[in-house]
Amino acid sequence: MIRAAVKRASDYGFDIYGIRYGWRGLLEGDIAHLRYEDVSGILSEGGTILKTSRTNPFKTERGPARVLENLRKFMIDALIAVGGDDTLGVAYGLSKMGVNVVGVPKTIDNDVAGTDFSFGFFSAVEISAGAIEQLFTTAKSHDRVIVVEVMGRSTGWIALFSGMAGGANYIIIPEEPFNLDEVCALVNKRRLDGKNFAVIVASEGAKLAEKEVVFLKEGEVDEFGHVRLGGIGQFLAREIEKRTGAETRSVALGHVVRGGPPSSFDKILATRFGLAAVDLVKEGMFGKMVSLRSTEIVPMDLEIAAAGLRTVNKALYDSAKIFFG
Amino acid sequence: MIRAAVKRASDYGFDIYGIRYGWRGLLEGDIAHLRYEDVSGILSEGGTILKTSRTNPFKTERGPARVLENLRKFMIDALIAVGGDDTLGVAYGLSKMGVNVVGVPKTIDNDVAGTDFSFGFFSAVEISAGAIEQLFTTAKSHDRVIVVEVMGRSTGWIALFSGMAGGANYIIIPEEPFNLDEVCALVNKRRLDGKNFAVIVASEGAKLAEKEVVFLKEGEVDEFGHVRLGGIGQFLAREIEKRTGAETRSVALGHVVRGGPPSSFDKILATRFGLAAVDLVKEGMFGKMVSLRSTEIVPMDLEIAAAGLRTVNKALYDSAKIFFG
Amino acid sequence: MIRAAVKRASDYGFDIYGIRYGWRGLLEGDIAHLRYEDVSGILSEGGTILKTSRTNPFKTERGPARVLENLRKFMIDALIAVGGDDTLGVAYGLSKMGVNVVGVPKTIDNDVAGTDFSFGFFSAVEISAGAIEQLFTTAKSHDRVIVVEVMGRSTGWIALFSGMAGGANYIIIPEEPFNLDEVCALVNKRRLDGKNFAVIVASEGAKLAEKEVVFLKEGEVDEFGHVRLGGIGQFLAREIEKRTGAETRSVALGHVVRGGPPSSFDKILATRFGLAAVDLVKEGMFGKMVSLRSTEIVPMDLEIAAAGLRTVNKALYDSAKIFFG
Amino acid sequence: MIRAAVKRASDYGFDIYGIRYGWRGLLEGDIAHLRYEDVSGILSEGGTILKTSRTNPFKTERGPARVLENLRKFMIDALIAVGGDDTLGVAYGLSKMGVNVVGVPKTIDNDVAGTDFSFGFFSAVEISAGAIEQLFTTAKSHDRVIVVEVMGRSTGWIALFSGMAGGANYIIIPEEPFNLDEVCALVNKRRLDGKNFAVIVASEGAKLAEKEVVFLKEGEVDEFGHVRLGGIGQFLAREIEKRTGAETRSVALGHVVRGGPPSSFDKILATRFGLAAVDLVKEGMFGKMVSLRSTEIVPMDLEIAAAGLRTVNKALYDSAKIFFG
Repeated sequence: MIRAAVKRASDYGFDIYGIRYGWRGLLEGDIAHLRYEDVSGILSEGGTILKTSRTNPFKTERGPARVLENLRKFMIDALIAVGGDDTLGVAYGLSKMGVNVVGVPKTIDNDVAGTDFSFGFFSAVEISAGAIEQLFTTAKSHDRVIVVEVMGRSTGWIALFSGMAGGANYIIIPEEPFNLDEVCALVNKRRLDGKNFAVIVASEGAKLAEKEVVFLKEGEVDEFGHVRLGGIGQFLAREIEKRTGAETRSVALGHVVRGGPPSSFDKILATRFGLAAVDLVKEGMFGKMVSLRSTEIVPMDLEIAAAGLRTVNKALYDSAKIFFG
Repeated sequence: MIRAAVKRASDYGFDIYGIRYGWRGLLEGDIAHLRYEDVSGILSEGGTILKTSRTNPFKTERGPARVLENLRKFMIDALIAVGGDDTLGVAYGLSKMGVNVVGVPKTIDNDVAGTDFSFGFFSAVEISAGAIEQLFTTAKSHDRVIVVEVMGRSTGWIALFSGMAGGANYIIIPEEPFNLDEVCALVNKRRLDGKNFAVIVASEGAKLAEKEVVFLKEGEVDEFGHVRLGGIGQFLAREIEKRTGAETRSVALGHVVRGGPPSSFDKILATRFGLAAVDLVKEGMFGKMVSLRSTEIVPMDLEIAAAGLRTVNKALYDSAKIFFG
Repeated sequence: MIRAAVKRASDYGFDIYGIRYGWRGLLEGDIAHLRYEDVSGILSEGGTILKTSRTNPFKTERGPARVLENLRKFMIDALIAVGGDDTLGVAYGLSKMGVNVVGVPKTIDNDVAGTDFSFGFFSAVEISAGAIEQLFTTAKSHDRVIVVEVMGRSTGWIALFSGMAGGANYIIIPEEPFNLDEVCALVNKRRLDGKNFAVIVASEGAKLAEKEVVFLKEGEVDEFGHVRLGGIGQFLAREIEKRTGAETRSVALGHVVRGGPPSSFDKILATRFGLAAVDLVKEGMFGKMVSLRSTEIVPMDLEIAAAGLRTVNKALYDSAKIFFG
Repeated sequence: MIRAAVKRASDYGFDIYGIRYGWRGLLEGDIAHLRYEDVSGILSEGGTILKTSRTNPFKTERGPARVLENLRKFMIDALIAVGGDDTLGVAYGLSKMGVNVVGVPKTIDNDVAGTDFSFGFFSAVEISAGAIEQLFTTAKSHDRVIVVEVMGRSTGWIALFSGMAGGANYIIIPEEPFNLDEVCALVNKRRLDGKNFAVIVASEGAKLAEKEVVFLKEGEVDEFGHVRLGGIGQFLAREIEKRTGAETRSVALGHVVRGGPPSSFDKILATRFGLAAVDLVKEGMFGKMVSLRSTEIVPMDLEIAAAGLRTVNKALYDSAKIFFG
């Protein structure tokens, strides 16, 4: 993304600056000139050179004012904001204040509305699916149930895609609260069929279906039905083992996935997004983000990304369900 | 694909048969019952269990008649044809003769018209891009130019996508005849900049631009501008070394790519195509193929796939060109 | 291993039986005929087809007697026992009782005495090292310390090899009790040098150096200096963050590593061990195990493996230390 | 290797210089100061930063004299030469002239005498074996024989190890001249058994057994029995197809293999060699190379490496033969 954007901007004769640590860097003035020589070799590393933070200028004292001051001070005419729904929400807020902003959807969670896919997603899926396949080998040779907790606090995209690609026996996503009895029934049914193992994939934000909550000890499920202590994977593993007697383990894939090598799909999407973002700047089309639609990169209103998360397609989840068992 | 189709068909209560070696098997009656137990574990192997051939019933004596005979003999009500433009062209032909056919676009070449992507393509891109990245290491440490010949007789999809993802210095595709002087000028320019290496990706079907042909020895370029002897990679390597003095090697990635592990993108697409194909059969929507449009699987007339190849998107090639050098 | 042993035994005209679930299967008579056709395609799956258990006949009621009964019942003349120090210890015990046993050292922990390497080890190292490299990317882009907990309850082979190959900033192994102050000092020193990240690799069996224990809350460290609650990784992450203020996370690699694809080193070693084990049987050399010495497979007394674990080579750990920081 | 050597040398207070392009750089004075900061991040790239050449000072006019002049001019007290038998042969020659030289065996061919393994070898094996496994998929689904030509002009180490790890049906190495009839008989036998495919691995330096030569057309085999035109792979593919009728293809893995990522085995071996080489310099033990023996790094006379290549262990090749078929 950065490599492509800097290349395009250089070709247009623009000066381009990198803002380190995202919004925090913009608030603090951690801003430096970027030349194509600095980024021409980073195709596989990507935006990690600029680092990230979780700072939100709208939740920071004098945040918006300091943003405007630094944009003036560094004479920045237009801003390209790269990130998920948080980042793009801030971008939209700044846009309404008159800042010239273009957004680029980048998140492994794939939950930005208004684009077919965000970049980062398929890389996370590829690594998660690979791990799931490996875990099948262990599950099989050790006669074990393995619960794989994958990233996804609010949406189940990674769980769904990596579970489908990895051939998971069951997939649990935040959009579809799950029923412990159903999961245990599946484990028991497989054992009756002589299959003493299973791999169950769960988003970290998976929720229990309401009627189930009462069976749990206090403190293990919060008021919204989220399982809190030790993560959903550990909770599920403990409950499945208790209820079915099957030896069960949990594995959390979080951090290993984040640092993996980018897939070709993502490298190409990031490159195209980077070029298109600079083109939007050149054409003065602000308040937009770049978006993948079918095979084309098209502009989309930032408002759409700011309005709410894109949840998992119900029809796709139903397709996956066909293979549960 | 097969796993998903057999699962869906079983759920619908259909009997399902596998035809080995594609059209050849249909002509010869190499047809066997398939149950879900046979295919439930083949998520990563896929259709290779049914094998392939290059037979075309319309170019075989009494081909169409024998197809009809075998369909009757095995009491097959509907046919799911899985393959590239050749296979789908035959499917369309049979459809016009009244056979109940549904098509599924599967080809690493990605040149079937009417779908965003065929399955098999991104797996080939991933492996080719990985090889290109590795070749950069050799090129750099040995001060060499390396020409990578990738698959693609008529279209440049694999060259374009794997070249973009792998960071190639130049990409040559059949759709855009190339100019040897231009390629050599790039090699020379890099050397002036102190970069004594380059990686150039070329589709096996790459063509020389017309005016170039006259500079070549007779026999090396055929009447259509195709380079014949030893493949485009060997030709290019020889010419670049002769004209620039840079040590140049060629590598053909063909067969290694074909047998690689499927990417998650392809495993999911194949699964969705398999389910959707059986749904089309159930609904009696014949003469159609399943197709990816944005994030949805939709039906598309087989006629579109039969009418001609989908060539590389010019705008995308122009995006790639920005990074040549 | 199994594929090679069955092949060799078939060539010698031996009948060969597979005992499922290791010693448990021998106690329970879960024993079946194995032919080369059953195993000729399992080069990359290996022994997982026979599954494993943790049963020890010498800790089971009438265990040794039942072993002898089943060996007689199935007319088994010689036993090939494949596993780590537990398995080989049992093998040695049976050998002393007069059973014809040959051992094969197989453990990802690499702690069997009497062989340069056990098979399984380098596959675990390869996957762990790959994960460590990926975690560096996350650590760097998020300015984080990441503690990677790898397998190894009693010895630090995996931590040491994967840490060296992955370029870890610090490696903690059971053989060398660690000092929390030293680890925190390293994190602080890196930050002074402008490196706000670090990757620390720790064996699951890592121990605190004695003087450190008193600083910890009761219950967090047991009488032997082992950290109990939540694993060493979680403990270290919590302490480092508390003491240095650096954002710190832990990742446990256990199960993902176990199911990974075997490395070439291991596939070849396993094949050679399998052939050699059957050769020992043929020559009547019982009470031995096969062992790698330099590039040769040689017989070694089972007693050596039964006498105690092979701990990490001090000189090698000292080599790794040179790069800590 | 370089990272480790520079680190160790810095710790000892030595000045360390990198010589680019090997012996050519020493002849031409292409020599630059190396600090640990320059190399601390190159664990996975390794020596490629110094590049290579094929120059031999003893075959260059005034070569030895110019080497001595440059060593004096740059005030180099000791030389660490990293490479295969050619490089180490030159090192030995210089050593006899009184130059303080230490050697490090590095070659993917693994044919340096005096060490269990050279570094670079297992990385090449890993990638070649992976490619061979992928080619099995193609061979199977297309009913094809595939001949895989791997690196190895004089010795068959890569062919043997990658063929064993990849499960090749036949392995041809330079040390054991092959018989075309035997290879074709194997292909035919497999087809009788219903297996219409095979993967045959051949070293690029494979030789025909003498009696076979007379059946070939003039020009295809040189006076030493080497096949010259188009490589052994193309030759074999052509002959097998002609003689058995089986569709046969060849694939040459050369360059893709060379640039692959280093395996953990190699990264650790290179690190240990680098440290040990500087230790030899410190102790004034010149005319030696570092060598792996079992699990230890020990000094070995350079003369051993200079005296001739280490060919494939006959017993190991015989082990592999057991699985041919």
